[in-house]
Amino acid sequence: MPELVNRQVLLAARPDGAPKDSDFNLVESPVPQPGDGQVLCRTIHLSLDPYMRGRMSAAKSYAKPVEIGEVMEGGAVSQVVTSNLADFQPGDIVFGYTGWQDYALSDGRGLRKVDPALAPISTALGVLGMPGMTAYTGLLNIGQPKEGETLVVAAASGAVGSVVGQIGKTKGCRSVGVAGSPEKCRFVIEELGFDACLNHRDADFAEQLEKACPEGIDIYYENVGGAVFEAVLPLLNSFARVPVCGLIAQYNATELPPGPNQVPLLMRAVLTKRLNVRGFIVWDFAEQEAEFVDRVSGWIREGRIKYREDFVDGLENAPKAFQGLLQGHNFGKLVVRVSPDPTQ
Amino acid sequence: MPELVNRQVLLAARPDGAPKDSDFNLVESPVPQPGDGQVLCRTIHLSLDPYMRGRMSAAKSYAKPVEIGEVMEGGAVSQVVTSNLADFQPGDIVFGYTGWQDYALSDGRGLRKVDPALAPISTALGVLGMPGMTAYTGLLNIGQPKEGETLVVAAASGAVGSVVGQIGKTKGCRSVGVAGSPEKCRFVIEELGFDACLNHRDADFAEQLEKACPEGIDIYYENVGGAVFEAVLPLLNSFARVPVCGLIAQYNATELPPGPNQVPLLMRAVLTKRLNVRGFIVWDFAEQEAEFVDRVSGWIREGRIKYREDFVDGLENAPKAFQGLLQGHNFGKLVVRVSPDPTQ
Repeated sequence: MPELVNRQVLLAARPDGAPKDSDFNLVESPVPQPGDGQVLCRTIHLSLDPYMRGRMSAAKSYAKPVEIGEVMEGGAVSQVVTSNLADFQPGDIVFGYTGWQDYALSDGRGLRKVDPALAPISTALGVLGMPGMTAYTGLLNIGQPKEGETLVVAAASGAVGSVVGQIGKTKGCRSVGVAGSPEKCRFVIEELGFDACLNHRDADFAEQLEKACPEGIDIYYENVGGAVFEAVLPLLNSFARVPVCGLIAQYNATELPPGPNQVPLLMRAVLTKRLNVRGFIVWDFAEQEAEFVDRVSGWIREGRIKYREDFVDGLENAPKAFQGLLQGHNFGKLVVRVSPDPTQ
Repeated sequence: MPELVNRQVLLAARPDGAPKDSDFNLVESPVPQPGDGQVLCRTIHLSLDPYMRGRMSAAKSYAKPVEIGEVMEGGAVSQVVTSNLADFQPGDIVFGYTGWQDYALSDGRGLRKVDPALAPISTALGVLGMPGMTAYTGLLNIGQPKEGETLVVAAASGAVGSVVGQIGKTKGCRSVGVAGSPEKCRFVIEELGFDACLNHRDADFAEQLEKACPEGIDIYYENVGGAVFEAVLPLLNSFARVPVCGLIAQYNATELPPGPNQVPLLMRAVLTKRLNVRGFIVWDFAEQEAEFVDRVSGWIREGRIKYREDFVDGLENAPKAFQGLLQGHNFGKLVVRVSPDPTQ
């Protein structure tokens, strides 16, 4: 057997603003051999998610940054090639944070089996994975949707937002999406069943939003920040909940927007409307994982939750695809096909 | 009996920025006669509280504004003079939102008896009244103090902040106050038993705060906004709670501060630190009133909670005293002595 090559995408430089090609470095090395207590995994599907932008920066956050010269962090669905662990057999389909590379070693920590019978295995990166669970836990625990309430969801065609709005519908909410193109808005309404979806690039977006929310907004599921949040703020009802899941509109920013400083406006709204603004990450609710998989896979089978995946072929195209993700170029959950899916 | 005069302080104009004398109008009218189902109350102590600044403005808030020409809103401890209600007898000491005036009619709604045996009756406006209950409910329900955590309290010598920090101590927190003069800081430490108290007017306030909170801040009880909040934000720990009770530093502002716009910084902190920023008013927890009075009066008897009142004599001095309150000129709970306290 010829020696196999492991391609890896390394962090070459910390981006200044939007990541560019030269911030990544594609290198080749021999495929490593698993030692005692290790498994070797071959990447099938690599997930690209907005949070990775944070890992590229040195700024303090909830997780450590990727160091320069390290493999880019990322969740992936892989197949076990060789196993020195009793729990994993060659051929098993697994999910783990194995990074932007063809092959990865794992000691089994954080590795979990993916059941191909449940749904296509790529969904372990999306609707049945971290993004879906982010939607589920943030909406139910912090958003606390109630029948008849109005839920506004930013990035509504994306991996998280699409699930948020559909779960909102199952709870009897009016789900109003915000997305970045007429095609995405159409998809969100016609395919996902939201009550409305608005294009935040429209000049009269704020007025459209007000019309789409005639009874105000009870829950704003925040994925983007910036102008969308500014349009939402005056429409929030008393006791509105704002789960803060992401702020993609500001991840590439290199400086603060010009003044005036609007913090006093925001805090006044928090006070006078008794808003509950709460940041979270999915692992704050780690104990709800089994419940999430059970319920959401059930809703998928019942046709109550639909999902869309945006596949890009080839590990070498991951950097470009990731740059596009931060600009909203993807349409649905962004997945890189690194090697053929053996279950298809 | 000569006809008695009822002096009333009316809202004369909506303030532009800081309220001034001409925004108030002191008028005299005959004392009204109670009709069927009414009581006539004579004001003893009038409460002055920062929230009243909001009532002077037309801007939408959680309560309706006072209209021009109406009596200024305010809570007061009064004595029943004449009663056409079975529940109230002449001589009873009562609390109600009877306004800035010598005499008021009430139909009994919102009127409750004050027990002079429990504590001096003026405390029904402070430590055992709305401010104390604001402290109690906001800290316990939203702040959720835990043993060993660091609690920072703005306006720490005031009616609310003083109680917040002392309750924090009973829960095993490190209580760090922020106040506006060296005398207030000394009082907060020496009399109220906070672990530290810093003067926000000091040029190196932010550094002092960092030193006083070597393990970061787990709870920031927000009463003031502005520069204090800006100094607190970088020190907040992951999962910190920020009950937003008041924003006195910005109530008189006529325009937003200059840029840059810091909202993205604030939202980034909310996200990466998973902060919970939640506005409230005391009546959101109305059902906890009996529990509050019971527990806090017990703590007062045990010497675990101390309070300070700042008395001003004469209804005619209420407008000036209120203007000073918004500048931080009071030292302790600000109370106007409108007529002699018959229980003293």
